[in-house]
Amino acid sequence: MDVETHAQLVAELREDVADFWQPLQSIARVDTRSLSPLAFYRQYVSKSVPVILTHAMESEQWQHVRTAWQDDEYLVQQAGDGEITVDITPFGYGDAVLELDRENELFVMPEERRMTLREFFRVLNDREGFDGVPYLSHQNDSLRDEFPRLYAQVPPCIELGKEAFGNDPDAVNIWIGDERAVSTMHKDHYENMYCVVKGRKHFTLLPPSDVACLYEREYPSARYRHESTLGQDAYDEATTAAFHSCHPEDTSWFIVPSEETGMTPWIPVDPLRINIKRYPLADHLNPLQCVVEAGETLYLPAMWYHRATQLCPTISVNYWHDMDFDCRYVYYNYVHRVAKAMDSGNKNKQS
Amino acid sequence: MDVETHAQLVAELREDVADFWQPLQSIARVDTRSLSPLAFYRQYVSKSVPVILTHAMESEQWQHVRTAWQDDEYLVQQAGDGEITVDITPFGYGDAVLELDRENELFVMPEERRMTLREFFRVLNDREGFDGVPYLSHQNDSLRDEFPRLYAQVPPCIELGKEAFGNDPDAVNIWIGDERAVSTMHKDHYENMYCVVKGRKHFTLLPPSDVACLYEREYPSARYRHESTLGQDAYDEATTAAFHSCHPEDTSWFIVPSEETGMTPWIPVDPLRINIKRYPLADHLNPLQCVVEAGETLYLPAMWYHRATQLCPTISVNYWHDMDFDCRYVYYNYVHRVAKAMDSGNKNKQS
Repeated sequence: MDVETHAQLVAELREDVADFWQPLQSIARVDTRSLSPLAFYRQYVSKSVPVILTHAMESEQWQHVRTAWQDDEYLVQQAGDGEITVDITPFGYGDAVLELDRENELFVMPEERRMTLREFFRVLNDREGFDGVPYLSHQNDSLRDEFPRLYAQVPPCIELGKEAFGNDPDAVNIWIGDERAVSTMHKDHYENMYCVVKGRKHFTLLPPSDVACLYEREYPSARYRHESTLGQDAYDEATTAAFHSCHPEDTSWFIVPSEETGMTPWIPVDPLRINIKRYPLADHLNPLQCVVEAGETLYLPAMWYHRATQLCPTISVNYWHDMDFDCRYVYYNYVHRVAKAMDSGNKNKQS
Repeated sequence: MDVETHAQLVAELREDVADFWQPLQSIARVDTRSLSPLAFYRQYVSKSVPVILTHAMESEQWQHVRTAWQDDEYLVQQAGDGEITVDITPFGYGDAVLELDRENELFVMPEERRMTLREFFRVLNDREGFDGVPYLSHQNDSLRDEFPRLYAQVPPCIELGKEAFGNDPDAVNIWIGDERAVSTMHKDHYENMYCVVKGRKHFTLLPPSDVACLYEREYPSARYRHESTLGQDAYDEATTAAFHSCHPEDTSWFIVPSEETGMTPWIPVDPLRINIKRYPLADHLNPLQCVVEAGETLYLPAMWYHRATQLCPTISVNYWHDMDFDCRYVYYNYVHRVAKAMDSGNKNKQS
């Protein structure tokens, strides 16, 4: 198959997605009270269609959380003096492909710094004085793990999700950050009930089949480290020099190789700023954007690609449920493998 | 992409199907009374997994049907003297690719002959005297359309299907035939609740993604006609001569071109008798076989490929429900288009 035939097949795939799968303009808002678990499953989960659920956070428990958690001081008192894990980056992109030059691209993760919740709020609010963008995005069950007293305040699940998926959440996470912090395009192997407690969350979404246009490749793994915490730790001198040369305003940050992680597969395409010349198939993408308001819940189907940020200081809680690895996963893998075969065939021809 | 890469991708697709989708050895039997509509939807419909449902035909209505319909004379009296449509073929393959030689392949449909149900049972039972294989397989709502008094005896739907799919059946069909009649590998755009009333039905099943291995191609359309009904109708002399030369025992049958139908896309691979040399990717197929007994219901998901026959004189009723054209359909189309592109690229290279 030549590159033109593949581009034509990807264009047809994208047309089918527009006709049969991805809502074209916007994510629907649906009143949870009108949805039986079967209707939710049939219309959204089985079809792998995201939807914003309203009125899913109206129990007494949620009402307390939605009111009390507006106050940082209340949260600080509940959390106590234990240390928590905060992700810190020079300019807000945690877990992202860092392009230094065409030959020098890395997958860079944030520095993970331990501090109290009080200290986190202090640096989050000190935009001028603190060097870096802090984001409480530790995930992997962070709410249960690091904030047991706050976890005790939220319901153990969104009932509609539990009944429809037929299982309890595998992980419950808390997310606190502002408009500077961005999670770049990625997917999770979880059904996601994402609840905004305070503020406004902005999502950019792509269906799993868009893996055909996203040029996922393997990058050497690295981490940001700030000079104030680096101490004697070894950093990558050449890469750090290249980084300083590309980002002269961030010379207090260093790049530390992450050899235990090895190579990481990640997506270099930012659907909000596409380099069409370099990634021509990304021209087919039709990114879907939505804002989830406080009190709303985004059902984000497993395997959907998402880029997420906040529009203001925002607190969210999300429930991750095991996904079903079924025929959709089989099909996804096939689209992914064809894309990889074509990408590597193409690169070989160029080199 | 070269042929070897494509073969490797198809092999990996098939491994994923075995790991995550298609049961490897046999179709499960599940007691309908243990399945809520949500559980049925989540475990079978959404995952597109066939299952044999037991105890779905136990209402009083079904018990009457399952008893009374064992008797051909009872059915004849209910059906009355109206004419019905019977499919007749020389050796049992209706709707099939007929391979006369490498350059001469057709899609051939059965002769459709009008007769009473009494006449149908007479010819069905007269194996020596009647020239051809009769099969009552008119579909397209045949039970409602041609047998209103028999339709009135069966329930209007299988309740579990109606509740899970969320719609009433679009068509209800009756099927009567014996082990000589075969429906060759094809798919339907319907969710199918297939109920065996009498006898035993044998299915060979392949998941939709096997379109990657099935070499679907376009064939000129034609119909069988028996000399006794042909009269002055024009037949295709060259094709009929080729047919008589390949099938010297069937010289009473003629091939009539079906120009209104034009070209028909069909599958030349018979998964029970694979020509690996001609269709090498079909080597990956792992056909699943099952026998549905009287009183059982096969849930056959939309788009699954199926070859069907009977093991003895068998009567079935099936309910077709609208399918959802969703992400699975989008993915299916992609696998199909890649297969077509590779097949035509390969044929071009050979010619």
